[in-house]
Order: sequence, then structure tokens, then C-alpha cells
Amino acid sequence: MIAVIADITVKDGSGEQFEAVIAELAEKVRTEEPGTVLYQLIRSKTDANSYKFMELYQDGAAIKAHGTSEHFQAAGKAMAPFLAGAPQIEYFDAL
Amino acid sequence: MIAVIADITVKDGSGEQFEAVIAELAEKVRTEEPGTVLYQLIRSKTDANSYKFMELYQDGAAIKAHGTSEHFQAAGKAMAPFLAGAPQIEYFDAL
Repeated sequence: MIAVIADITVKDGSGEQFEAVIAELAEKVRTEEPGTVLYQLIRSKTDANSYKFMELYQDGAAIKAHGTSEHFQAAGKAMAPFLAGAPQIEYFDAL
Repeated sequence: MIAVIADITVKDGSGEQFEAVIAELAEKVRTEEPGTVLYQLIRSKTDANSYKFMELYQDGAAIKAHGTSEHFQAAGKAMAPFLAGAPQIEYFDAL
């Protein structure tokens, strides 16, 4: 499996709107991406604007399916106004 | 749910031994901690000494059960010689 951790910072006051976009996206990921094992949004307990995604994929093909999906690209556009900067994405081997 | 991300750096050449300790621990977590939803060790693709744990717990009681368990404390001792420094642990709300 491949793990991904994406760090995202939102603009002040945009948390709720951002979370609403992601809730919809996560539901689509859950139902339409059989190769995505985990797609979990988490919010820092010390900085309310600081989020991470914890993601697990069966393989590279699953990551590609996720990244090229209509729902992911639509969510990318929908969340853009709420982001304070580009997401920082790191890839890992899941052991 | 509560999410935890723990960052761990191991000493050069200690990766395999560290991973062996964690494989045993993860099995005990899986079978003996009903409140632990995810306990996943991941290794950076760019720095072989850099690991993270992606962890999800049902609630605070589950985190406490994990931290006070015999198997976690035994693993803590077993992994100590392989660590290049203290783990960095951050807590999150899982949304």
C-alpha cells in the first residue's frame, strides 16, 4: 500500500466551508474508489486552520484513479477559495 | 474519533530492526485494542530513516488503553535503541 499525507491550511473563517466540500468529496471517494483504503480529514487540536489528510491506497493505479476522478477535480475547484496556500503532499510506503 | 500522527526518525541502519518491533506491536494493537481503528506505520519515500504512525482512535479512553498497555510499553523499550530522537506526537480531531 501507499500512504499519502497532505497538509492543508485554510484561510481564517473558512474551516466550515472547507470541511463541507471535503465531506462531500470523502463520500464520493468512499463509494466510487475501490482502491482507496483510507481518506480521512483531520484537524489540528492546536490550530483550527491546520488540516491533514491521512490517505491509504492499494497501489499507484488507485492513486491515479483518485487524482484523475471527476469528483476530486471538482472538489479541487470548490475548495480553492478557502485555501491559504497550496497543499503540501508527501508519499510513503505503508508497512 | 481522535487522530494521532507520530513522527519517528531512526538511526542509520536501524530501520529493519525498528520495523520488526513495530510489526509485532501492530499485531497486538490489532488484536487487543478494540478501540484502536487504525495503527499504520509508514516510511518516507525520500528518507529511509523517517517514519510516521497514522493512528485513529474511537475516543480518549482508547488512546489511554493503548498508551498504558503492556505491549505498547514493552515495544517502547524494545524500539528505544533504534531511535535517533524522541517521537514527535500530534493530536487531531478526525472529521
